[in-house]
Amino acid sequence: MKIYDFPTGPYPARVRIALAEKKLQSRVEFVLVNLRKGEHKRPDFIASKNYSGTLPVLELDDGTLIAECTAITEYLDALDGAPTLTGTTPREKGVIHMMSKRAELELLDAISVYFHHATPGLGPQVEIYQNREWGLRQRDRAIKGMHYFDSVLRQQPFVAGEAFSMADITVIGGLIFAKLVQLPVPGECEALSAWYTRMQARPSVRDQLALVPPPRDAAA
Amino acid sequence: MKIYDFPTGPYPARVRIALAEKKLQSRVEFVLVNLRKGEHKRPDFIASKNYSGTLPVLELDDGTLIAECTAITEYLDALDGAPTLTGTTPREKGVIHMMSKRAELELLDAISVYFHHATPGLGPQVEIYQNREWGLRQRDRAIKGMHYFDSVLRQQPFVAGEAFSMADITVIGGLIFAKLVQLPVPGECEALSAWYTRMQARPSVRDQLALVPPPRDAAA
Repeated sequence: MKIYDFPTGPYPARVRIALAEKKLQSRVEFVLVNLRKGEHKRPDFIASKNYSGTLPVLELDDGTLIAECTAITEYLDALDGAPTLTGTTPREKGVIHMMSKRAELELLDAISVYFHHATPGLGPQVEIYQNREWGLRQRDRAIKGMHYFDSVLRQQPFVAGEAFSMADITVIGGLIFAKLVQLPVPGECEALSAWYTRMQARPSVRDQLALVPPPRDAAA
Repeated sequence: MKIYDFPTGPYPARVRIALAEKKLQSRVEFVLVNLRKGEHKRPDFIASKNYSGTLPVLELDDGTLIAECTAITEYLDALDGAPTLTGTTPREKGVIHMMSKRAELELLDAISVYFHHATPGLGPQVEIYQNREWGLRQRDRAIKGMHYFDSVLRQQPFVAGEAFSMADITVIGGLIFAKLVQLPVPGECEALSAWYTRMQARPSVRDQLALVPPPRDAAA
């Protein structure tokens, strides 16, 4: 299988961490799509790979295309018949999907909108429309979201409860993006920070974070 | 189990259709949360039921709360060990999740943003912040999304391929919302319209649509 990818992107990071957790990296050919040059917004990519113009996209050997991190994670997690990231019981599946979606809404996607609308983002050739006011609202939403996930992690060791899951990976994606846009985790969010330190002890997360350039370069 | 719900809401409709498809309605107690009065945005609802302040929310008998339609559908579909809405093979799971998420991004959520930001929405007491320009952009995105799903349905009988799934339900939610905000399906989207007519032959969809008030009342 192929993955259309930009290695340091926060969304591609979610799938790379999932791949590492499932020990599937060696089965994937990564195809670079240069986010900085807006290659994911080009008409041929949109027409042939992903209507929504986002990364990553998984392409199976039969040509099937699967975009969206949650969908790709569902695919990868089901491959060996032993899901570890998306839950096995109905309750686990429900809670993991809820918390992962909440991490998108309240953290990762909010930071993405801030980046693309209230900072230079990927530059004037890619960011052809910006709504700064909306971007700033989403920045505030993300900071509030950090406090929310801190409150969750004061009660339980992982984002969706007692075990590592896709929901942790989504929050990690959020904090990777937060660092890129220089939106630090508030000092009082001690449980969130302690959890993130624990997450970085996982090889899947540590190896991904090692790819991320320092903020100044990323914002360039 | 309980579902915090507003019967005619497009998002609650997604879960009601899933319940009907799984023949689980009789196991649910519906608790009315009045969207028109903004009860889903009240601090007690946000603190005790759903941080994101949205409907529907599923509450299990052990007190577990599951918000977000995709998460609730995952739970309900797994209950009998025989999923019919979220796929069984890895490929099915991946494609269904992708298409359902795409239906949120490009249709249902876009119409929701249009409704809350570029129309009176739920009224001045609920819509305390509006960004009209962003709302109008999302309206245009939704109309483009209708054309996209039309192109998909020219190639295959259901949104995610050869079988009815959660992805169809999400597009149905989008078209329910489109009707409420008087955003008609463009006449040239013949495959989308024909698919929607077929969907309305399903009891789950027909019964839900029978609840939806005519547009004039809904917009009041």
